Amino acid sequence: MAFILQKARLFLSFFIVVTFSQTYANNGYDLWLQYKKTENNNLLSHYKSTVKSIVVFGTSKTIEISARELKKGLSGMLGQTIPKTSNIESDNVIVISSLSNLEKNFLPLIENDFVNLPDEGFLIKSVKYRNKNLTLIISKNDIGVLYGSFAFLRLLQTNQRIDNLNIKDAPRLKHRLLNHWDNPDRTVERGYAGFSIWNWHKLPEYIDQRYIDYARANASVGINGTVLTNVNANALILTPEYLEKVEALANVFRPYGIKVYLTARFSAPIQIGKLETADPLDEKVQQWWKNKAKEIYERIPDFGGFLVKANSEGQPGPQNYRRNHVDGANMLADAVAPYGGIVMWRAFVYSEHDPTDRAKQAYSEFVPYDGQFRNNVMVQVKNGAIDFQPREPFHPMFGAMPHTPLTMEFQITQEYLGFSTHLVYLPKLYEEVLQADTYAQGKGSTVAKVIDGSLHNNSLTGMAGVSNIGNDINWTGHHFAQANWYGYGRLAWNPYLSAEKIAEEWIRCTFSNSEEFVDTIKRMMIKSRETVVNYMTPYGLHHIMGTGHHYGPAPWVSNLPRPEWNPVYYHKADGYGIGFNRTKSGSNATSQYFPEVEKMYDKAKTTPEKDLLWFHHLPWDYKLKNELTLWEGIAMKYQQGVNEVYEMLTTWEKMKKYIDNERYNDVKMSLEIQLKEAKWWRDACLLYFQQFSEMPLPDGVHAPNKNLDYYQSLKFPYAPGRG
Amino acid sequence: MAFILQKARLFLSFFIVVTFSQTYANNGYDLWLQYKKTENNNLLSHYKSTVKSIVVFGTSKTIEISARELKKGLSGMLGQTIPKTSNIESDNVIVISSLSNLEKNFLPLIENDFVNLPDEGFLIKSVKYRNKNLTLIISKNDIGVLYGSFAFLRLLQTNQRIDNLNIKDAPRLKHRLLNHWDNPDRTVERGYAGFSIWNWHKLPEYIDQRYIDYARANASVGINGTVLTNVNANALILTPEYLEKVEALANVFRPYGIKVYLTARFSAPIQIGKLETADPLDEKVQQWWKNKAKEIYERIPDFGGFLVKANSEGQPGPQNYRRNHVDGANMLADAVAPYGGIVMWRAFVYSEHDPTDRAKQAYSEFVPYDGQFRNNVMVQVKNGAIDFQPREPFHPMFGAMPHTPLTMEFQITQEYLGFSTHLVYLPKLYEEVLQADTYAQGKGSTVAKVIDGSLHNNSLTGMAGVSNIGNDINWTGHHFAQANWYGYGRLAWNPYLSAEKIAEEWIRCTFSNSEEFVDTIKRMMIKSRETVVNYMTPYGLHHIMGTGHHYGPAPWVSNLPRPEWNPVYYHKADGYGIGFNRTKSGSNATSQYFPEVEKMYDKAKTTPEKDLLWFHHLPWDYKLKNELTLWEGIAMKYQQGVNEVYEMLTTWEKMKKYIDNERYNDVKMSLEIQLKEAKWWRDACLLYFQQFSEMPLPDGVHAPNKNLDYYQSLKFPYAPGRG
Repeated sequence: MAFILQKARLFLSFFIVVTFSQTYANNGYDLWLQYKKTENNNLLSHYKSTVKSIVVFGTSKTIEISARELKKGLSGMLGQTIPKTSNIESDNVIVISSLSNLEKNFLPLIENDFVNLPDEGFLIKSVKYRNKNLTLIISKNDIGVLYGSFAFLRLLQTNQRIDNLNIKDAPRLKHRLLNHWDNPDRTVERGYAGFSIWNWHKLPEYIDQRYIDYARANASVGINGTVLTNVNANALILTPEYLEKVEALANVFRPYGIKVYLTARFSAPIQIGKLETADPLDEKVQQWWKNKAKEIYERIPDFGGFLVKANSEGQPGPQNYRRNHVDGANMLADAVAPYGGIVMWRAFVYSEHDPTDRAKQAYSEFVPYDGQFRNNVMVQVKNGAIDFQPREPFHPMFGAMPHTPLTMEFQITQEYLGFSTHLVYLPKLYEEVLQADTYAQGKGSTVAKVIDGSLHNNSLTGMAGVSNIGNDINWTGHHFAQANWYGYGRLAWNPYLSAEKIAEEWIRCTFSNSEEFVDTIKRMMIKSRETVVNYMTPYGLHHIMGTGHHYGPAPWVSNLPRPEWNPVYYHKADGYGIGFNRTKSGSNATSQYFPEVEKMYDKAKTTPEKDLLWFHHLPWDYKLKNELTLWEGIAMKYQQGVNEVYEMLTTWEKMKKYIDNERYNDVKMSLEIQLKEAKWWRDACLLYFQQFSEMPLPDGVHAPNKNLDYYQSLKFPYAPGRG
Repeated sequence: MAFILQKARLFLSFFIVVTFSQTYANNGYDLWLQYKKTENNNLLSHYKSTVKSIVVFGTSKTIEISARELKKGLSGMLGQTIPKTSNIESDNVIVISSLSNLEKNFLPLIENDFVNLPDEGFLIKSVKYRNKNLTLIISKNDIGVLYGSFAFLRLLQTNQRIDNLNIKDAPRLKHRLLNHWDNPDRTVERGYAGFSIWNWHKLPEYIDQRYIDYARANASVGINGTVLTNVNANALILTPEYLEKVEALANVFRPYGIKVYLTARFSAPIQIGKLETADPLDEKVQQWWKNKAKEIYERIPDFGGFLVKANSEGQPGPQNYRRNHVDGANMLADAVAPYGGIVMWRAFVYSEHDPTDRAKQAYSEFVPYDGQFRNNVMVQVKNGAIDFQPREPFHPMFGAMPHTPLTMEFQITQEYLGFSTHLVYLPKLYEEVLQADTYAQGKGSTVAKVIDGSLHNNSLTGMAGVSNIGNDINWTGHHFAQANWYGYGRLAWNPYLSAEKIAEEWIRCTFSNSEEFVDTIKRMMIKSRETVVNYMTPYGLHHIMGTGHHYGPAPWVSNLPRPEWNPVYYHKADGYGIGFNRTKSGSNATSQYFPEVEKMYDKAKTTPEKDLLWFHHLPWDYKLKNELTLWEGIAMKYQQGVNEVYEMLTTWEKMKKYIDNERYNDVKMSLEIQLKEAKWWRDACLLYFQQFSEMPLPDGVHAPNKNLDYYQSLKFPYAPGRG
């Protein structure tokens, strides 16, 4: 008996507990369109009683897509199939229609709602019709129905009530574009989420499901245009072989309200047109572009137009022929004007022949041309005057060209902000820029008002976001980088939305409506942008990243052929202090701002400390508002950045129960990389700057484990995203 | 009243029927591990009554993975959760265990089953134990349990009964490897399914779910090793920065029974070791490799070893120092020998300084070294003597080196067979080669017997497959290319399996068990390899593809610097005829075969017509067995290839009801591309060869729509997959 018992114990000891994860794996492919079943039972009952079926008016592909999306979303969130029906006499029906297709009996229910509603706007309205409850989703044209359908679904996704609705919404900007810096070999300049989703080789015949899902995701946030190709352009895209492929993409995107645009290589008439010049005042060149535009529009009647990077960083342009930006832009504008196309001419220029502060050059070069561009030209301006840094003061061009439509260029891909392993919620950055006051027409002349045309009464308005999309399964490499795509789209729709509201929407749509989770993760996201500034470039430092790939810290680099390519050009650390003097006593870049702003930035004491070293070269012992010396302040900020990443990691770990395993682990691994790299930034930068300050690290700042030589020796020959 | 009716009709006419697809979208990510619920109700009942729970002995990660896989697979296919239990006294239990962990009471049930069972083999046996029905899945070691679990699941996946089982299986080859031609920048040489799945930048911290799913898929077919890097090698992979990343992958793969291997760039001691030479007889060089091996094995104790391409196509090697392949291979073999590592030295060599037939050079260079390699060296030989053509006679080295283990190198990626848009079932090609008779030891000396060591009594055996895996969501670009990965793995496990049996397995696991579908698609797959030969290179033609990228036909190319890079070198079309005379009267390559084979190939009349122009230069009016002239025969084969692709397309369309929409559409689009390109091959080749034959196209062959100039003008500067 004892023997048997012993045997049994032995036997049991062989068993192991294999834990099978009960959490459904989520690879993130579905983005913010998860449509999980509503967990709140009261709300679920409310939704079920309000939504019984869908009635559809109209036959366009866009309407069909809207109906399919509603069915998919509602069925998912209600946990039961919501059928399409043709019976509008039943109760609790969702009705989708454009105004022109709408059953005429309904018109009295919405008669005054369409006054002043723009073409792409929509109305979501709860009405009674013959004693039945209906929810109308109505728009002037079909694309507004799709936008309205996504907006309605978002109400459920974010756990809002859907009775007594009376929502009118419309985009504030006309052109809401993604810019893909994608090359024909599928590498993506500044791409960190794999490679280009455009599989040119298999186009036009092979329509990857990605293209459809890409269009759907964009439409869900109101993006209505996409520039398929890199601003460092390849003329090949304008050949018939490639236009056939572009046409295939345009056909996929059209029912989602998305137009395609291309980058125009200025030298294309020579490279693919066999002309001897690309001089914009040469008639043959002008004719070549007109013919090319005609060829494109014959294939793609709603082609959006051209985006051009000219005479910048080696790209050809009108200056190669002693012409100017106006000559170049207007030539292209004339070519596409007959078809309603536009030209977006980038202001991102700086010259190796111009010894003045790089931050001043775009303004100096473009502002004199104000009013000279054709009325289908927009000048596309980066948010700051250098290049997509973790923080930059707003670009002085905003407000300075009242007779020229300016379109905002934001970077969604994190070229300078940690690639796709750092969690940085960028709408916080976008909001800071959009809400900045240019004082162009006095106080309250925000950048947003420049962009949306209200300040200078422009009707040609737009925003461009440099895409962070690649062929990683989760689209953006980091699950939280999806929020930057989402948030960019929402701000392009309405630049007055708050970053916090957008974060909350995105969290609820993407992860969970649990209040603890939403509150915690929202706080983490909102703080994350300041965190990356802290551990990379506090107090207005900028452009001290690794050469070429921009990966990691390299403030020591000083041997590149063009002065403004070297980090030392930007931080100017020396025995006295640190920072770039852009005041009257320095480069006088402050003079490019309107007087109120100029005055503020021209003195260190009135400059917000977040921008301090952008404008001022200050001694190491300069006293900050918190009584620390500048050196101590810098050191403490780097340490704070590290501490905050550590907090993000522990916060994330505490939220584990709300998250599926796959996304939980992915984000956790990324946060661990971010923590490692935040420390790397802190240690490398402080060791380097300490050579000049010759001051000890203040208490609370961790001493580096390695010496400066080590950090300077690091090489990353295959860092991703180079052009 | 009439008014109301009219109104109602009008009203109804506004409604449209929006069809919502009921078929669940399937993106193909799950490969052949779909585990859909069993549709046959009788079988479902049988499965449910036979499988009630799972009992697990052992605690290793491999056992845990086996248990998880069984639970996932069985729960999916039975449509109900199959729990793990610790109660072996219950009925209808699946028991998984290694022999050493097995409850001792079970041992008498299997006592004789483990005689002669190799380490990786397994037993699946239905037994009665205390009047209860059990299914035992037992192996000598844990990995065999995983293989057995997948084998058991496959029984259900392919709708077989699972009572009265008594299955013993074990791999015939020891090293069953994938070779990834993946570069550190994530481009993949000859990759057509996106880019490398190895995200070096994010390693070692970030473990992409892909790595785990990759290991799982490989384990499911018995692949037990992977060479992570391109044979055109980069020494960087051997630096500590990259070895840390390799280690992270090895840790992921280990519990799936998969070892990692690396390609060794022969000049690494110079490039990363700061030595002045890489001479294999230099003691410092030898020591450098020994130190490097030690460093690797300290990180990765089960590191597999090195794969080397040396002195081939510009790669450095021992000949740079007037040493030979034996010197190079043995040096590396000595470095890894203390740790049980192996060296795979590739025989794919041909020289611009050697004017003899390229097909002869590998044999001439390697056969004299037979018996001189260390016993941990395998010479890796491509299936044919040129380069992975749609058809090649088997490589004459097979059978010719009785004292040297030869490992077979097959190409899974379709470099010369239509990239990832042509449906070509490659196991048919592999089978043809494996079943070819070398006559090395008389009749029946098949290539398979050379490879598995049985012919010459080698115990070091292996097979290498050049991977077709990329970061496309469906892994291989074409859903049917998954079958080539699957089939390669199955043949590496057992080179005597029939291609047809493998196709059937794969279809059932991947798509459907419906008999009509299985029969139809199996026939289509089996035929597909001959089809690609027909429309690309019938009758033994070879290497007439586009230069560099190998995309599309280009038999006219004659201007490349090395003669053997030009298609004209291979087809030798002229006014007399076409084909490469490799008989005694020509290059005498036939003499490299054993006499029986040599005799067969040396005469046109005894040469199988499928290989005719590989060995013979024949007049255009040469009479084929079917009484057509050679010209007519060639033309008819090209047309037949086109016709067969058209048949594949219509067959696929007829099978629509069995297939989810996404995969149906993907494959349909690919077949349409294949049809277009088959016509391109037919038209371009026939127009070109017709210049020499000066004969009309026979009846039934479509006249080309375009002229030869057009086909010659086509350029593909960004065709994928270049190195």
